[in-house]
Amino acid sequence: MVQPDKYIIGVDFGTLSVRSTVVRVSDGFEKGTASEVYKHGVMDTHLTASKGEVLPPDFALQVPADYLEAFQKSVREAVSNSGVVVRHIIGIGIDFTSSTVLATDDKGIPLCEYPEFTHRPHAYAKLWKHHGGNEQAHRLLKVAQERNESWLPRYGGLLSSELLLPKVLETFEKDREVYDKASFFVNALDWINWLLTGKLVYAGADSGFKRHYQDDKYPDAEYLEAVSPGFGNVYKDKMSGPIQPLGSKAGELTPKMAEWLGINPGISVSVGNIDAHVTAAAIQAVKPGIMTAILGTSACYIVSGPEFKEVPGMLGITYGGIADGLWCFEAGQSAFGDILAWFIKNGVTEEYKKEAEEQGLSLHNYLTKKAAVQEIGQHGLIALDWHNGNRSILCDHNLSGMILGQTLTTRPEDIYRALMESCAFGARKIIETMKVHGVEIKEIVAAGGLLKNKWLMQLLSDVTRIPLSITEATMVGALGSAIYGAVAAGCYETIEEASEAMGSKVPNVYKPHESRSLKYDQLYKEYLILHDYFGTGENQVMSRLKKIKEEAVKDKF
Amino acid sequence: MVQPDKYIIGVDFGTLSVRSTVVRVSDGFEKGTASEVYKHGVMDTHLTASKGEVLPPDFALQVPADYLEAFQKSVREAVSNSGVVVRHIIGIGIDFTSSTVLATDDKGIPLCEYPEFTHRPHAYAKLWKHHGGNEQAHRLLKVAQERNESWLPRYGGLLSSELLLPKVLETFEKDREVYDKASFFVNALDWINWLLTGKLVYAGADSGFKRHYQDDKYPDAEYLEAVSPGFGNVYKDKMSGPIQPLGSKAGELTPKMAEWLGINPGISVSVGNIDAHVTAAAIQAVKPGIMTAILGTSACYIVSGPEFKEVPGMLGITYGGIADGLWCFEAGQSAFGDILAWFIKNGVTEEYKKEAEEQGLSLHNYLTKKAAVQEIGQHGLIALDWHNGNRSILCDHNLSGMILGQTLTTRPEDIYRALMESCAFGARKIIETMKVHGVEIKEIVAAGGLLKNKWLMQLLSDVTRIPLSITEATMVGALGSAIYGAVAAGCYETIEEASEAMGSKVPNVYKPHESRSLKYDQLYKEYLILHDYFGTGENQVMSRLKKIKEEAVKDKF
Repeated sequence: MVQPDKYIIGVDFGTLSVRSTVVRVSDGFEKGTASEVYKHGVMDTHLTASKGEVLPPDFALQVPADYLEAFQKSVREAVSNSGVVVRHIIGIGIDFTSSTVLATDDKGIPLCEYPEFTHRPHAYAKLWKHHGGNEQAHRLLKVAQERNESWLPRYGGLLSSELLLPKVLETFEKDREVYDKASFFVNALDWINWLLTGKLVYAGADSGFKRHYQDDKYPDAEYLEAVSPGFGNVYKDKMSGPIQPLGSKAGELTPKMAEWLGINPGISVSVGNIDAHVTAAAIQAVKPGIMTAILGTSACYIVSGPEFKEVPGMLGITYGGIADGLWCFEAGQSAFGDILAWFIKNGVTEEYKKEAEEQGLSLHNYLTKKAAVQEIGQHGLIALDWHNGNRSILCDHNLSGMILGQTLTTRPEDIYRALMESCAFGARKIIETMKVHGVEIKEIVAAGGLLKNKWLMQLLSDVTRIPLSITEATMVGALGSAIYGAVAAGCYETIEEASEAMGSKVPNVYKPHESRSLKYDQLYKEYLILHDYFGTGENQVMSRLKKIKEEAVKDKF
Repeated sequence: MVQPDKYIIGVDFGTLSVRSTVVRVSDGFEKGTASEVYKHGVMDTHLTASKGEVLPPDFALQVPADYLEAFQKSVREAVSNSGVVVRHIIGIGIDFTSSTVLATDDKGIPLCEYPEFTHRPHAYAKLWKHHGGNEQAHRLLKVAQERNESWLPRYGGLLSSELLLPKVLETFEKDREVYDKASFFVNALDWINWLLTGKLVYAGADSGFKRHYQDDKYPDAEYLEAVSPGFGNVYKDKMSGPIQPLGSKAGELTPKMAEWLGINPGISVSVGNIDAHVTAAAIQAVKPGIMTAILGTSACYIVSGPEFKEVPGMLGITYGGIADGLWCFEAGQSAFGDILAWFIKNGVTEEYKKEAEEQGLSLHNYLTKKAAVQEIGQHGLIALDWHNGNRSILCDHNLSGMILGQTLTTRPEDIYRALMESCAFGARKIIETMKVHGVEIKEIVAAGGLLKNKWLMQLLSDVTRIPLSITEATMVGALGSAIYGAVAAGCYETIEEASEAMGSKVPNVYKPHESRSLKYDQLYKEYLILHDYFGTGENQVMSRLKKIKEEAVKDKF
């Protein structure tokens, strides 16, 4: 079945940049790669693509044209770097952050490109971590609970504002003109494929995880109408089109887009996938019991299982979410590396910066080095990893960070270590919840930017008592997309087969040490008490403080 | 009664330095001042006066010889600066941090000056904030509760390790050789006067507040024996000597010490007082209902009242504690400015440091400026001011700091403001506790290093809803000591009379604004919930973390 010397382009659209790779179909070897950042990055305080209008709290927008510019550049550069002859490139597969939602006209042109809408925040792409629809998400959940909607357990019984529906409802309620003008609300991964193939096809796994498509249907109009009068037909009116499974072909590359990318027209374009999820294929974690942990700015955990299990607090439970025939369970931490980066940016003194420079270390490495020599518990601190809310298992964006135990001798490395530990504890809480509800997890395969912090990886293994494998692929997401692309192009029968042939994994690099695990148990016990106290309703101070904050600044917008 | 053109030297021994002032008896005018730091400062990690031996956690030691060196220099310089003719100086009065405890031989020589004891931590002065006797304090309290000791309500029903007794018991249990060798355990203020006059007299107010002397007696031997066998006679064996009230004469300056200080022999030396407490006299806050707030590294609150009231969580309730005929109520926050200084030292980035420098501001002023423009509640944070434990009203040194509400957009000025607010909330909790139990407070007179932060002073007034007066005296403590010195020297009949004539106060500089007070009420409500949750036993995580910490580092000592 394997076609030697054939290549697939995998493209991975992340939060701040896009990565492209040209991958050999036979063994997954990455012949050439490139990456490009988005010109405007994330607009979370000001609408910099317009006149710098101030944005409300919880907003996170992007500029669709930035995606395309970076896409074109990175594909052309990756192909050029690979030295591969263009006719040997037989397919392309993409992934994208999700749910990143665009409002477009009937041709797929984003509404923010219409002059009358350039100053309207809701006409831009709402990035996955846009939380402007918090209130809408709460309302969607409340009505779904009241009506006992059948799809609710698939989302852990909760409803995150990071899904598509709250974002679209927010537009419906906050900027009706944009809503009315929009012919489509489309996740960015489907939007890119629409441009590439000329037809709009919705990706099945993404539709399950992010678009409320479960058991072959969307939420019904009666429910949506009950949430917000007039909103009932949103799927029918604004999201018509076919849904296809992972590994299938969305279409073929149009001549226009082929010329734009500098590759051949007519090649296979596979159905898109969620950026984090393609990793499972790239790191040989498609089989049940092997958890994919993507540890970057946020953390995403996915694992497949043979049977449906009702696990509370999951982001999504979707049949065929990784591969056909398996259920996929997804959970996440809204911030992981972001918390450490926040601390590096805001909490480290000049003195430390100088010392790090003198030692030739990044601030992350310098603080990790200082933290690593401590005994477990020596810093006397416990933190909660909720600086961007809690995605799993509490699914509450109104939660916030906490740190406790500071004394006058507490130093930055103490806080940094406590924050790393809080991220590991958050991961353990997710894993334990899955296990308690019958989802087996016997191995973690880690990917993402935080792999380079070996101390943190060992911590994660010690805290969870699970061996940790890693990947050596340079562009994991892009490789994963190429694997799905290879299946769609007909090079492999199944995703699992393609993953075994093309994926990259180094098994059991980190193993838990029982003596350390026992010590971390003590701290985790404290974490759990605080997790429940602040997270499950006993003291809703975090949510009240957010309200006070909103009230305090409301006259500024 | 007033003697024109006569002068008193007031000397104020603080945590890091001593301040001396030459004060005109008639009106309190400070003719000359000087200050000197202690050579070794506070030894809290290493015994730097010996060979740098590592100290256990919670230690805070000082070197008695440092006190004397700084004392001599500052008095000589203040006299020189004043231009006052030495024969017009008719008295001297001192105050000292308390309880700062020395173990001495029968001549008053500190044991750390014996070659065989230079490397023994317990032979040094235990500074007021030395918390090595935490365990002893808990045991002293437990037995006192069991036996229902009559003095217990005078200390708010609790027992701080900052008092004299736990510090002496700690030496008894941790270094018996030092204990056995000691002829006296003496608070530093009495020790200085012992050197000046050649006789050991214990100050009455200090004995009430810090030495467990209540209703004309010390705790009885049976109680002390029950706490630790062999400790029963500690007062009889190691603390014999007379006790005298405030404003009385401890003795006269010996020729030897007069020569050493460069002033005349035979002048009056008044009974010493606690450094914070002399402030009341200096700022005209001797009368009932006027609270003295000394806001420096820590915060001390004293107020007098006509009747005894049982107020929980007070540091001390002592008859004659400020002036004869009045009960004095004392409470405190173990850290105040220290928390802000800790944050400035550990939590502010290079970028902020540069910006502050460019604007010619200290980091404190720069952060205050950035914090001040915020709306109340805009930062979304709540902190607990327990970085050095909670002195009042919880009296628990195992408590620690906490901050809650952080997001990825939280900036240093947000945290700095939340820390300032937490200090103000801690003050309000103390004031409310006093009021609820019948102690009137209608005015606050503030003194101390934090007076210069006007925003913080306004915050304190807004949060407590009490008008705030300030002092313009340059050396408040030293002035206060001079006032007591003037009474002892016979220049005034009463402390109140001397305070009115010589003290310095600018009334009602800050007045509470109701609209702001109402907004702070919302945050204070959250503070109270967390105060009680973490402070009164529901979740003893802070104390457990301290135990884990001690366990973690125990092999290092």
